[in-house]
Amino acid sequence: MANSKYDYVRGFEAPHHLLRDTYIILRLDGRCFTKFAASHHFQKPNDPRALHLMNASASATMRFIPEIALAFGQSDGFSFLLPRECALFDRREEKLLSIVVFLWPQYFAGETGGEEQRPFMAPPSFDCRATCYPHVENVKHYFSWRQVDTYNNNLYNTTFWALVLKGGLKRHEAAEELQGTSSADKNEILFSRFGINYNNEPAIYRKGSVQQKQQEEEHETAGIPKFKSKTPRKKEEKRTRKTKIVIDHVDIIGEGFWERRPWLLGSGN
Amino acid sequence: MANSKYDYVRGFEAPHHLLRDTYIILRLDGRCFTKFAASHHFQKPNDPRALHLMNASASATMRFIPEIALAFGQSDGFSFLLPRECALFDRREEKLLSIVVFLWPQYFAGETGGEEQRPFMAPPSFDCRATCYPHVENVKHYFSWRQVDTYNNNLYNTTFWALVLKGGLKRHEAAEELQGTSSADKNEILFSRFGINYNNEPAIYRKGSVQQKQQEEEHETAGIPKFKSKTPRKKEEKRTRKTKIVIDHVDIIGEGFWERRPWLLGSGN
Amino acid sequence: MANSKYDYVRGFEAPHHLLRDTYIILRLDGRCFTKFAASHHFQKPNDPRALHLMNASASATMRFIPEIALAFGQSDGFSFLLPRECALFDRREEKLLSIVVFLWPQYFAGETGGEEQRPFMAPPSFDCRATCYPHVENVKHYFSWRQVDTYNNNLYNTTFWALVLKGGLKRHEAAEELQGTSSADKNEILFSRFGINYNNEPAIYRKGSVQQKQQEEEHETAGIPKFKSKTPRKKEEKRTRKTKIVIDHVDIIGEGFWERRPWLLGSGN
Amino acid sequence: MANSKYDYVRGFEAPHHLLRDTYIILRLDGRCFTKFAASHHFQKPNDPRALHLMNASASATMRFIPEIALAFGQSDGFSFLLPRECALFDRREEKLLSIVVFLWPQYFAGETGGEEQRPFMAPPSFDCRATCYPHVENVKHYFSWRQVDTYNNNLYNTTFWALVLKGGLKRHEAAEELQGTSSADKNEILFSRFGINYNNEPAIYRKGSVQQKQQEEEHETAGIPKFKSKTPRKKEEKRTRKTKIVIDHVDIIGEGFWERRPWLLGSGN
Repeated sequence: MANSKYDYVRGFEAPHHLLRDTYIILRLDGRCFTKFAASHHFQKPNDPRALHLMNASASATMRFIPEIALAFGQSDGFSFLLPRECALFDRREEKLLSIVVFLWPQYFAGETGGEEQRPFMAPPSFDCRATCYPHVENVKHYFSWRQVDTYNNNLYNTTFWALVLKGGLKRHEAAEELQGTSSADKNEILFSRFGINYNNEPAIYRKGSVQQKQQEEEHETAGIPKFKSKTPRKKEEKRTRKTKIVIDHVDIIGEGFWERRPWLLGSGN
Repeated sequence: MANSKYDYVRGFEAPHHLLRDTYIILRLDGRCFTKFAASHHFQKPNDPRALHLMNASASATMRFIPEIALAFGQSDGFSFLLPRECALFDRREEKLLSIVVFLWPQYFAGETGGEEQRPFMAPPSFDCRATCYPHVENVKHYFSWRQVDTYNNNLYNTTFWALVLKGGLKRHEAAEELQGTSSADKNEILFSRFGINYNNEPAIYRKGSVQQKQQEEEHETAGIPKFKSKTPRKKEEKRTRKTKIVIDHVDIIGEGFWERRPWLLGSGN
Repeated sequence: MANSKYDYVRGFEAPHHLLRDTYIILRLDGRCFTKFAASHHFQKPNDPRALHLMNASASATMRFIPEIALAFGQSDGFSFLLPRECALFDRREEKLLSIVVFLWPQYFAGETGGEEQRPFMAPPSFDCRATCYPHVENVKHYFSWRQVDTYNNNLYNTTFWALVLKGGLKRHEAAEELQGTSSADKNEILFSRFGINYNNEPAIYRKGSVQQKQQEEEHETAGIPKFKSKTPRKKEEKRTRKTKIVIDHVDIIGEGFWERRPWLLGSGN
Repeated sequence: MANSKYDYVRGFEAPHHLLRDTYIILRLDGRCFTKFAASHHFQKPNDPRALHLMNASASATMRFIPEIALAFGQSDGFSFLLPRECALFDRREEKLLSIVVFLWPQYFAGETGGEEQRPFMAPPSFDCRATCYPHVENVKHYFSWRQVDTYNNNLYNTTFWALVLKGGLKRHEAAEELQGTSSADKNEILFSRFGINYNNEPAIYRKGSVQQKQQEEEHETAGIPKFKSKTPRKKEEKRTRKTKIVIDHVDIIGEGFWERRPWLLGSGN
């Protein structure tokens, strides 16, 4: 087809290729989630429906993008790890962001659908960022950072909502009471006032959700699974739709998690 | 909440702010659309259902993001113009891409839903890129580029499918026949062999779809509508949900289109 | 020559092309200049030798890079304007920075040379940044920003050093005395205590230095001089070495300066 | 000092911070070096004066920027390695480029000075680029890539100039004769026609120059030298001016070089 004199406008495009040979973490974050939660009458401090919906969406994303080695989610955020070798979309940032963000509402809306669906009332929305991490230790620290955040947020929220829902405090009173308290303080409030042993709360709330593909026998022996980026989509989809995703609620901080799953970080560095 | 020693990992993030005082064009493009079209038995060369779905999705996007001044769509692509003054998300590229890509499948899936929906069979997917254009003339040329592309593609496709569906040629034969032909040649093939006057084909196919918000009286006199970026979402949504979007299938190449709509490009230069 | 298996390392390079069709301003800034000034016994508040050396270096830079349309310098900084159309080094940021930074010390060292030169005692150093400005008004505002800075800094320094050198104050006492003072206050201090009418100070100190190429007759009538980027260096150098650079110490804030020199900003918008 | 309404122009600046925890390699490359060489009557194929001048400039650069762990130079190029931990200038690309490019001509001009200096006749010029390499292996491969390039270029040039200077061929004839020849072919031409055993050529020509700081006793035992980035310049300069730089012409391809100098790449991975 004939080109036109207007074609020069393509020269303004500035695609960004993420630095080669680094781990890529794609982090999806909710926007306006509080409103969405309110308008859907989410349970406080945690709504199992919402967490399972997030987890199901993440699993579907992992099936659709087989390059994803690991996912970690809590509340309205999910992080996806791509290996150092990842060549998907030639590592173009906008393409990588787009595919995750595009997939999410399909799964998400899919399960909130029907009568329940009120898409414009207080629509949640997600954005995604891509960050490069050069080393295995950076990646471990990244996931530790997310889980520490989960710990802190959930302990705070659990105590806050206990004070409000069971203690009869107004929200601003609960917030004031918790200002400056340590983790030990919050544990003590929960236990002494409400008889709640925080460590008995469901692990999904306290630790978040770790998702990974089940390693088949041959993978475990071979060490590192192959991530292919440019095989024909169709065939890959068939294969990956059968992939079993394992969801755990375990400690990801520390070396134990990674030592038991050496394939997650590839050949290391 | 306590920070942790892992917080340093945020330092690897490299958010990208698009150059100030430039027009931003967000272009959404379909991936694997051909397969999607095939599996949904789209009409050839153009499927009205698909085009109207694209247009409806774009209108909904324009209502949700009131900063969008203009949209142009054809086939499986849509371009959205943000004004020079746009401060949405502090012009962070990943946030701007995310919101468009996140909204799209909600509208898109919404109307293909029900029995028809086969989300995993040959899922279409869209990615979005953001490009800065410094000057009014660049923006005009950008939209001219898209419309020239529409002209060329649709004339080719119309002729190709006439040769296949009415002329009984195999696809590769039609492709060979069209190789090296001019626009005049294709018009002649359509007219002499199939009695088709190309200029009578629906304008939506030939010229694509231009979407803009209807200008109210005070706007028309005031010249340039104000684009607000940080007003409370909720109030804005109410206002904008009522905004009427006008869809035209007109020439956007040349000065006439822009001269009749001086508010589209703001204060100029 | 044979390629090697190591060539892949080039794939990590990420050259940055500055956005097309925007003005580029290269700003050179001194580092550790105070020390350099001290070790060379610079006069306070302004040392004519240093300013003339800066101006001479900037003129030489303008002769060597004929694309530069305008330069503005004050103290240890110099800004160079490249036109919207500039295609020098395909607008690669690192190349543009490099050429200015590489040229500078040659001129600079050249004239401080001889006995005086003590290159390692407290070496000054310069760094350069490149910034894109899309519009004529941004460019005017940029140079206004630099000149307002010149005004403020020089008034402060003139008053500070009058208090120290003529008023016998210690430096910290002078700094305390000036804290919170307005421009009018400083003018008053200079006049009432030291008999200095600030407006009679040399314009080079108060307004900085504006450099531009002398427009020949045909240029003035033709309006806009052509900037060529890829002509053979050698020929260009001969031509440009003859180019006369005009140095003024005039107001660049406001429209007057630009209206009298319409060729500086090219075809406008 | 009072801010002005023009300060907004700073918002267009887009400083680029190089990805944390990656090795940074700064590569200085000559532009128009051939002309410079010709106008200074450089010896062919290699001019010892020029190479020693490059080496001396690189040593001075290493003394001035103590963070540099290793340098490799050949012909008109030099590469400098900064360690993963480098925090110099907060890893701002433009600052890192500037300092190397600014230092170079001072040393370079310094030694070509006097009667010899003809700065504008065919001025050489250098530009510098910064590239991030995440892993030890990337860094080793980078330097291997440079040395393979040195091997190939020098063998070619040695043979080419032997054909021209000793064999009486015109330049285009020599170029034609060498087209498509292997390394073995070139060795054979040198030996059979000109009695030159290429392996007896000076190592500085064949292998380039490797520069590193001499490790003192305590460093060798401690393993990894500390690189400090923000200590007061002055003190650091004194210390580093005494630093002895070692220049070798050895194989850097392969593991041997790195195994004998474990401190060069820091804590590894």
